[in-house]
Amino acid sequence: TTLFLQTSLLNIMRAKYDKESIIAQGAKLFRKEGYHHVGINALLKVCEIPKGSFYNFFESKEDFVVQTLSWYGTKQQGYIKHMLKPENGSPLERLRFFYKTLINENEQDGLDAGCLVNNISIEVAGLNDQVGKEAFQQFKSWTNIIAETVEQGQETGEIRKDFSSTQIAEYLHSGLYGAFPLMKSQRSRQPLDLWFSMAFTFIQA
Amino acid sequence: TTLFLQTSLLNIMRAKYDKESIIAQGAKLFRKEGYHHVGINALLKVCEIPKGSFYNFFESKEDFVVQTLSWYGTKQQGYIKHMLKPENGSPLERLRFFYKTLINENEQDGLDAGCLVNNISIEVAGLNDQVGKEAFQQFKSWTNIIAETVEQGQETGEIRKDFSSTQIAEYLHSGLYGAFPLMKSQRSRQPLDLWFSMAFTFIQA
Repeated sequence: TTLFLQTSLLNIMRAKYDKESIIAQGAKLFRKEGYHHVGINALLKVCEIPKGSFYNFFESKEDFVVQTLSWYGTKQQGYIKHMLKPENGSPLERLRFFYKTLINENEQDGLDAGCLVNNISIEVAGLNDQVGKEAFQQFKSWTNIIAETVEQGQETGEIRKDFSSTQIAEYLHSGLYGAFPLMKSQRSRQPLDLWFSMAFTFIQA
Repeated sequence: TTLFLQTSLLNIMRAKYDKESIIAQGAKLFRKEGYHHVGINALLKVCEIPKGSFYNFFESKEDFVVQTLSWYGTKQQGYIKHMLKPENGSPLERLRFFYKTLINENEQDGLDAGCLVNNISIEVAGLNDQVGKEAFQQFKSWTNIIAETVEQGQETGEIRKDFSSTQIAEYLHSGLYGAFPLMKSQRSRQPLDLWFSMAFTFIQA
């Protein structure tokens, strides 16, 4: 009976808070401010949840960031598929459209954040294997989708064939990651535009 | 007299500690573990300096990281010039030698750190303009040196000319930065090798 009551109480406490909205708030905060800079109290405040309830959902801050990466990664998968859908043009046009949109979105967002997966990989992956593995899995889930469009572009003859579609997809996406530190330190989209211009010159057949 | 005594005392306290070795320890720690993860007490312990003496040298942790970036940047400038010296081959050969050596050094170092300037830019530049500016200045000081060799390679006909030497230097170095999150999250040099192979294919004339 005690166990039953405890379980019921846990379910009631959980029902009061929407786990996905907590994770969404966390993703936003981590993306803008980093992992270690955001203390557990700041996190609870932004997520509007008491400490006890937070720990009903998540074992630890580490568990929380792993679930946040997984949620963010899955959401972005849907976004990437949407951007690369056949109606948006030829394979190369779609890839250009996708990355140009990402660059514009970063500008609208203040040029101070970049990508959660890149940020967490740089800040946390060297210290924590589990967080690193989750971040890499999300990166791969995106580049696998991008590689499908690259392959189509190789078939139509728009994209060079001396590297595999997977290699070109990883090179493209990690190239954008490399422009983010310069974007953030200058608060300028110029490094993103330079990367775009050079990377797309390179991948063209 | 009081002021004179205070100044003398400050000089004595300073003399006991070597500012450069404190900064060198800080650079090592920040590069491996990040900025916010490293608390002031961990910093004092690694630098083997009491809190009072630390604050005689540095106004704040922020001031410390700015001076650390400046020291690290200047040290790396000398290293880059050394790697790119004419005795090391043709301009393109020297660039390949420099980046191949950087990749090997990251492997020897455990594949968990990458570059201090990239790490601090990603983690701190979005939150702090002064730190961002210092990080960007160091990045530029390196790519200015790299651009000189790129320009020589353009003159000898080894390197493509449809982008400026500065653009190619920035594209090269930021491309390496983009491979670091993948290196760290996989603990693998494979993303660095992929970047190397593709970037050098791209810049060749």
